[in-house]
Amino acid sequence: MNENIFDFIGGKTGDWKITKATTLIGDSLPKVTHVDKIQSCLINRFEGDWSLKGVISNMRYTDKYEKEKMDAKQEKLGRKKATHAAFIPIRKSQAWWDLAQDERRHIIENQSKHMQHGMKYLPAIARQLYHSRDINEPFDFLTWFEFAPEDEPAFNELLSIMRKSEEWKYVEREIDIRMVRV
Amino acid sequence: MNENIFDFIGGKTGDWKITKATTLIGDSLPKVTHVDKIQSCLINRFEGDWSLKGVISNMRYTDKYEKEKMDAKQEKLGRKKATHAAFIPIRKSQAWWDLAQDERRHIIENQSKHMQHGMKYLPAIARQLYHSRDINEPFDFLTWFEFAPEDEPAFNELLSIMRKSEEWKYVEREIDIRMVRV
Repeated sequence: MNENIFDFIGGKTGDWKITKATTLIGDSLPKVTHVDKIQSCLINRFEGDWSLKGVISNMRYTDKYEKEKMDAKQEKLGRKKATHAAFIPIRKSQAWWDLAQDERRHIIENQSKHMQHGMKYLPAIARQLYHSRDINEPFDFLTWFEFAPEDEPAFNELLSIMRKSEEWKYVEREIDIRMVRV
Repeated sequence: MNENIFDFIGGKTGDWKITKATTLIGDSLPKVTHVDKIQSCLINRFEGDWSLKGVISNMRYTDKYEKEKMDAKQEKLGRKKATHAAFIPIRKSQAWWDLAQDERRHIIENQSKHMQHGMKYLPAIARQLYHSRDINEPFDFLTWFEFAPEDEPAFNELLSIMRKSEEWKYVEREIDIRMVRV
């Protein structure tokens, strides 16, 4: 088991019960009732109806000022009151990955204000990004968000802003899975 | 087998015969005579006396201007005349990884001129970076360079510039393995 590697297993059992699953763009995943999120390793598990793997890494775009603001404001996963969660796996296009670092950063923050918008929803929305692209998974990122039920409208508002952004023009697969803690 | 995942196996056989191995900082690797570089997958192979795994990823610091200049100038691995190679696995400190993206970029280019210096040695030195940190390997990066024998002094000059840089203050493990193609 590695501290930074996680499997997200869709199946008939798990710590999170699915309330809604929406495929926004690209292929959907097989329909399941639960998601289990477990510490794992690089070897593939063949459990559930689907299994997605991601690794926690260093931040790749956040600058010092944003990082300090974020570190001061954000809360960790696993808060008792955060009984609701969203699991949103995302793949971006080859055109995105062919861009240089400064071009990607420009689109993420100057054009799309990804960090600036996200910051407004802290600490209500706790989140964690898992990287999947370099380990040859079907998605580039697995994003996970936890919040209290009363904060779900705010979370939806944030998503709606993001999905209209310049950055999201490069998203070619996105599935939005909402869950409640079992 | 995955196109972007490689194992570097140190042992008694392999495509590259070691001519010299120098541990610059940190723990050394067990002494071997050959290195084999093979396409692999995420599962660990227990071959040779040591085995290091790395993945080719997108570029994380290079800006558009640098990328275009580099793409125009650099050559691929595997050139017939490039009978000599260097395999240099590197680990940076936690302090490095705790820095924000703009701070790391500042040290790499503004203070250390990593790309600017590297560019001068293209196309003579062909190179490839393999990422290891996110897959829980003992090193953060595996760097691989190929050149004709007459270009080795130039390569040594480049390394000597890099090792005096601000960026290299964060290097806590580095081993320099020189090889000839078998």
